[in-house]
Amino acid sequence: MAKISSPTETERCIESLIAVFQKYAGKDGNNCTLSKMEFRNFMNTELAAFTKNQDPGVLDRMMKKLDINSDGQLDFQEFLNLIGGLAVACHDSFLKAAHASKRI
Amino acid sequence: MAKISSPTETERCIESLIAVFQKYAGKDGNNCTLSKMEFRNFMNTELAAFTKNQDPGVLDRMMKKLDINSDGQLDFQEFLNLIGGLAVACHDSFLKAAHASKRI
Repeated sequence: MAKISSPTETERCIESLIAVFQKYAGKDGNNCTLSKMEFRNFMNTELAAFTKNQDPGVLDRMMKKLDINSDGQLDFQEFLNLIGGLAVACHDSFLKAAHASKRI
Repeated sequence: MAKISSPTETERCIESLIAVFQKYAGKDGNNCTLSKMEFRNFMNTELAAFTKNQDPGVLDRMMKKLDINSDGQLDFQEFLNLIGGLAVACHDSFLKAAHASKRI
Protein backbone atom coordinates (compact mmCIF):
# COMPACT_ATOMS: atom_id res chain seq x y z
CA MET A 1 0.00 0.00 0.00
CA ALA A 2 1.30 3.44 -0.88
CA LYS A 3 2.42 5.52 2.07
CA ILE A 4 0.38 8.69 2.52
CA SER A 5 2.79 11.24 3.90
CA SER A 6 1.75 14.30 5.88
CA PRO A 7 1.98 17.62 4.01
CA THR A 8 5.27 19.53 4.06
CA GLU A 9 5.53 23.02 5.58
CA THR A 10 5.31 24.58 2.08
CA GLU A 11 2.25 22.52 1.15
CA ARG A 12 0.55 23.45 4.43
CA CYS A 13 1.32 27.08 3.74
CA ILE A 14 -0.25 26.96 0.25
CA GLU A 15 -3.33 25.24 1.72
CA SER A 16 -3.56 27.90 4.46
CA LEU A 17 -3.38 30.78 1.99
CA ILE A 18 -6.24 29.29 -0.02
CA ALA A 19 -8.30 28.50 3.11
CA VAL A 20 -7.87 31.99 4.59
CA PHE A 21 -8.77 33.66 1.29
CA GLN A 22 -11.85 31.49 0.84
CA LYS A 23 -12.93 32.08 4.43
CA TYR A 24 -12.99 35.87 4.04
CA ALA A 25 -14.03 35.95 0.36
CA GLY A 26 -17.08 33.80 1.13
CA LYS A 27 -18.79 36.31 3.43
CA ASP A 28 -20.68 38.43 0.89
CA GLY A 29 -21.33 38.69 -2.86
CA ASN A 30 -18.80 36.97 -5.13
CA ASN A 31 -17.10 34.21 -3.11
CA CYS A 32 -14.01 34.20 -5.38
CA THR A 33 -13.05 37.79 -4.49
CA LEU A 34 -12.65 40.04 -1.45
CA SER A 35 -14.94 43.06 -1.42
CA LYS A 36 -13.81 46.22 0.40
CA MET A 37 -15.69 45.08 3.51
CA GLU A 38 -14.25 41.55 3.36
CA PHE A 39 -10.74 42.97 2.88
CA ARG A 40 -11.16 45.22 5.96
CA ASN A 41 -12.48 42.25 7.92
CA PHE A 42 -9.50 40.12 6.82
CA MET A 43 -6.95 42.81 7.69
CA ASN A 44 -8.48 43.67 11.07
CA THR A 45 -8.70 40.00 12.08
CA GLU A 46 -5.70 38.30 10.50
CA LEU A 47 -3.25 41.20 10.42
CA ALA A 48 -4.46 43.26 13.37
CA ALA A 49 -0.89 43.81 14.57
CA PHE A 50 -0.26 45.61 11.30
CA THR A 51 -3.50 47.63 11.18
CA LYS A 52 -4.04 48.62 14.83
CA ASN A 53 -2.09 51.89 14.80
CA GLN A 54 -2.83 52.85 11.22
CA ASP A 55 -4.83 55.78 9.95
CA PRO A 56 -8.38 54.57 9.07
CA GLY A 57 -7.86 55.51 5.41
CA VAL A 58 -4.80 53.22 5.06
CA LEU A 59 -6.84 50.09 4.34
CA ASP A 60 -8.81 51.80 1.58
CA ARG A 61 -5.60 53.09 0.00
CA MET A 62 -4.02 49.62 0.26
CA MET A 63 -7.06 48.03 -1.35
CA LYS A 64 -6.92 50.55 -4.22
CA LYS A 65 -3.23 49.84 -4.78
CA LEU A 66 -3.69 46.04 -4.65
CA ASP A 67 -6.72 46.10 -6.97
CA ILE A 68 -4.66 45.96 -10.17
CA ASN A 69 -7.62 45.54 -12.54
CA SER A 70 -9.61 48.24 -10.65
CA ASP A 71 -12.80 46.18 -10.35
CA GLY A 72 -13.32 47.15 -6.68
CA GLN A 73 -12.56 43.57 -5.59
CA LEU A 74 -9.39 41.62 -4.76
CA ASP A 75 -9.01 38.29 -6.53
CA PHE A 76 -6.71 35.56 -5.21
CA GLN A 77 -3.67 36.77 -7.20
CA GLU A 78 -4.16 40.32 -5.92
CA PHE A 79 -4.49 38.95 -2.36
CA LEU A 80 -1.25 36.97 -2.81
CA ASN A 81 0.54 40.15 -3.89
CA LEU A 82 -0.34 41.59 -0.47
CA ILE A 83 0.93 38.50 1.39
CA GLY A 84 4.09 38.50 -0.75
CA GLY A 85 4.70 42.19 -0.08
CA LEU A 86 4.32 41.69 3.68
CA ALA A 87 6.55 38.61 3.62
CA VAL A 88 9.29 40.50 1.72
CA ALA A 89 9.07 43.40 4.20
CA CYS A 90 9.36 40.99 7.18
CA HIS A 91 12.22 39.09 5.52
CA ASP A 92 14.11 42.33 4.83
CA SER A 93 13.74 43.46 8.43
CA PHE A 94 14.95 40.05 9.72
CA LEU A 95 18.02 40.31 7.47
CA LYS A 96 18.72 43.86 8.70
CA ALA A 97 18.34 42.77 12.33
CA ALA A 98 20.63 39.76 11.76
CA HIS A 99 23.20 41.99 10.06
CA ALA A 100 23.02 44.55 12.89
CA SER A 101 23.41 41.89 15.59
CA LYS A 102 26.54 40.53 13.85
CA ARG A 103 28.11 44.01 14.04
CA ILE A 104 27.63 44.32 17.83
CA MET B 1 -0.19 43.52 31.43
CA ALA B 2 -0.67 43.42 27.68
CA LYS B 3 -2.11 40.19 26.35
CA ILE B 4 0.25 38.38 23.99
CA SER B 5 -1.99 36.67 21.47
CA SER B 6 -0.93 33.66 19.42
CA PRO B 7 -0.22 34.35 15.73
CA THR B 8 -3.10 34.22 13.26
CA GLU B 9 -3.13 31.71 10.38
CA THR B 10 -1.91 34.42 7.96
CA GLU B 11 0.92 35.48 10.29
CA ARG B 12 1.98 31.84 10.74
CA CYS B 13 1.97 31.44 6.99
CA ILE B 14 4.22 34.47 6.43
CA GLU B 15 6.61 33.16 9.13
CA SER B 16 6.64 29.71 7.50
CA LEU B 17 7.46 31.11 4.06
CA ILE B 18 10.42 33.01 5.49
CA ALA B 19 11.59 30.03 7.59
CA VAL B 20 11.39 27.57 4.67
CA PHE B 21 13.25 29.95 2.35
CA GLN B 22 15.98 30.61 4.92
CA LYS B 23 16.33 26.89 5.65
CA TYR B 24 17.06 26.01 2.02
CA ALA B 25 18.89 29.24 1.10
CA GLY B 26 21.32 28.76 3.99
CA LYS B 27 22.85 25.52 2.70
CA ASP B 28 25.57 26.88 0.39
CA GLY B 29 27.06 30.20 -0.79
CA ASN B 30 24.84 33.26 -0.39
CA ASN B 31 22.32 32.57 2.39
CA CYS B 32 19.85 35.16 1.06
CA THR B 33 19.29 33.31 -2.24
CA LEU B 34 18.60 29.80 -3.53
CA SER B 35 21.28 28.42 -5.84
CA LYS B 36 20.29 25.88 -8.51
CA MET B 37 21.24 23.05 -6.13
CA GLU B 38 19.32 24.59 -3.20
CA PHE B 39 16.28 25.12 -5.43
CA ARG B 40 16.35 21.45 -6.54
CA ASN B 41 16.73 20.39 -2.92
CA PHE B 42 13.77 22.58 -1.90
CA MET B 43 11.55 21.29 -4.73
CA ASN B 44 12.42 17.61 -4.21
CA THR B 45 11.84 17.85 -0.44
CA GLU B 46 9.02 20.35 0.03
CA LEU B 47 7.13 19.86 -3.23
CA ALA B 48 7.98 16.24 -4.04
CA ALA B 49 4.36 15.51 -4.98
CA PHE B 50 4.78 18.06 -7.76
CA THR B 51 8.23 17.01 -8.96
CA LYS B 52 8.13 13.20 -8.70
CA ASN B 53 6.76 12.46 -12.19
CA GLN B 54 8.41 15.37 -13.95
CA ASP B 55 11.07 15.28 -16.62
CA PRO B 56 14.47 15.95 -14.95
CA GLY B 57 14.91 19.13 -17.02
CA VAL B 58 11.70 20.69 -15.65
CA LEU B 59 13.33 22.05 -12.49
CA ASP B 60 16.10 23.75 -14.46
CA ARG B 61 13.56 25.31 -16.82
CA MET B 62 11.43 26.45 -13.86
CA MET B 63 14.46 27.99 -12.18
CA LYS B 64 15.35 29.85 -15.39
CA LYS B 65 11.80 31.20 -15.69
CA LEU B 66 11.62 32.25 -12.02
CA ASP B 67 15.06 33.91 -12.09
CA ILE B 68 13.76 37.27 -13.34
CA ASN B 69 17.06 39.13 -12.97
CA SER B 70 18.99 36.18 -14.50
CA ASP B 71 21.67 36.08 -11.80
CA GLY B 72 21.51 32.27 -11.52
CA GLN B 73 19.98 32.54 -8.04
CA LEU B 74 16.44 32.91 -6.68
CA ASP B 75 15.93 35.69 -4.18
CA PHE B 76 13.00 35.73 -1.75
CA GLN B 77 10.69 37.67 -4.11
CA GLU B 78 11.44 35.23 -6.96
CA PHE B 79 10.77 32.32 -4.56
CA LEU B 80 7.43 33.90 -3.56
CA ASN B 81 6.45 34.14 -7.23
CA LEU B 82 6.78 30.34 -7.39
CA ILE B 83 4.66 29.82 -4.25
CA GLY B 84 2.08 32.31 -5.56
CA GLY B 85 1.94 30.57 -8.93
CA LEU B 86 1.39 27.18 -7.30
CA ALA B 87 -1.24 28.59 -4.92
CA VAL B 88 -3.15 30.18 -7.84
CA ALA B 89 -3.02 26.88 -9.78
CA CYS B 90 -4.33 24.94 -6.74
CA HIS B 91 -7.02 27.56 -6.07
CA ASP B 92 -8.17 27.44 -9.71
CA SER B 93 -8.43 23.67 -9.65
CA PHE B 94 -10.42 23.77 -6.36
CA LEU B 95 -12.85 26.26 -7.94
CA LYS B 96 -13.22 24.08 -11.04
CA ALA B 97 -13.82 20.98 -8.89
CA ALA B 98 -16.38 22.87 -6.74
CA HIS B 99 -18.12 24.13 -9.88
CA ALA B 100 -18.17 20.63 -11.41
CA SER B 101 -19.59 19.05 -8.24
CA LYS B 102 -22.41 21.63 -8.19
CA ARG B 103 -23.42 20.56 -11.71
CA ILE B 104 -23.76 16.86 -10.83
